[in-house]
Amino acid sequence: MLIDLKCNEFIEELASASPAPGGGSVSALAGALGAALVSMVANLTIGKEQFKADEEELQAVLAKASELKEKLMSYVDEDTEAFNRVMTAYKLPKGTEEEKKARTQAIQEAMRQAASLPMEVAECCLEALQLTKTAVAKGNPNALSDGGVAVLMAFAGLQGAIFNVQINLGSIKDEQFVQTMREKKEHVLRKGQALRDEILAMVETKLN
Amino acid sequence: MLIDLKCNEFIEELASASPAPGGGSVSALAGALGAALVSMVANLTIGKEQFKADEEELQAVLAKASELKEKLMSYVDEDTEAFNRVMTAYKLPKGTEEEKKARTQAIQEAMRQAASLPMEVAECCLEALQLTKTAVAKGNPNALSDGGVAVLMAFAGLQGAIFNVQINLGSIKDEQFVQTMREKKEHVLRKGQALRDEILAMVETKLN
Repeated sequence: MLIDLKCNEFIEELASASPAPGGGSVSALAGALGAALVSMVANLTIGKEQFKADEEELQAVLAKASELKEKLMSYVDEDTEAFNRVMTAYKLPKGTEEEKKARTQAIQEAMRQAASLPMEVAECCLEALQLTKTAVAKGNPNALSDGGVAVLMAFAGLQGAIFNVQINLGSIKDEQFVQTMREKKEHVLRKGQALRDEILAMVETKLN
Repeated sequence: MLIDLKCNEFIEELASASPAPGGGSVSALAGALGAALVSMVANLTIGKEQFKADEEELQAVLAKASELKEKLMSYVDEDTEAFNRVMTAYKLPKGTEEEKKARTQAIQEAMRQAASLPMEVAECCLEALQLTKTAVAKGNPNALSDGGVAVLMAFAGLQGAIFNVQINLGSIKDEQFVQTMREKKEHVLRKGQALRDEILAMVETKLN
């Protein structure tokens, strides 16, 4: 599994001429790193006398961040698997009319999965981004830059996943599916951008 | 070494209550992932007949991206080491006046290093970001979303590293040093933002 590779091995595998893993898996990884940084900020805040007033809220953030971190880590591999299923479908035989039809159907099904999966990644990253707000606003100020980096990673994961939705939508014939996905991605991206701008402004104010 | 940890172990280590590794190492990792994605796009383009006209330029991009990837991977550990040296300096004895003076000096020296290091990371990420322009403009269009994610990761690494410069500058007494670093960081950030906006607009146009 990709997530079991050493960091340097994953990076080398990524840099290679093989088309997978690629940006989809990196987006999920970025989201997981963002969620992990939220956990870190919460862990550096919880249990300290001066932050007692916000302890309960940070406990909830920690629990949710841990859950998202696990989910996003599993998406690192799932995204590459979804990509590989598209490649496998393209290799199906296309000798007879029947084979051609079955192959087209298999490609379309695999493509829909390869678009749906990064949409789930984007939604998880949006949830992680929501958590960074509490981490930055109420977390230990010594970990402010960690909270700031959490914002950047969660948003990069979100937007990167959206790119992966978009590139797959181009090959999908099911217009209803494409329309629904386009609306969803616009919604997630707009919400994410607004949140990122709001929280980064908070980081900047606190850093200066 | 952190970069030798498995991805999931690195993420768990990050999420823990220990203050290092943190956002500084993640910023370097993000930059390394961005550089690796540039390499991937170049590798998926070089050697293909239809992209022959740009082959030489992509070879140069590949060579530079590989170099930046190596540098940024080493910064993953170096950033945490710089942070740990600050922590060590804080633990020096402060019983006598002489000890106090030596301790303050050691803290200040470690702090300057802990601010200089993420500045180097930010500069490497800016170089990686520059490479993403060719990857997006002239790379294999099948890898367009990978080029897009490369932009996001290189810029997240840049801005994250700048946060780490900023948080350390707050504790540094050497005003000349602080002033120089502030100017440098403004320059790198502005240049990075302009580049990111330009390249992401190109990604959007090509994706639609």
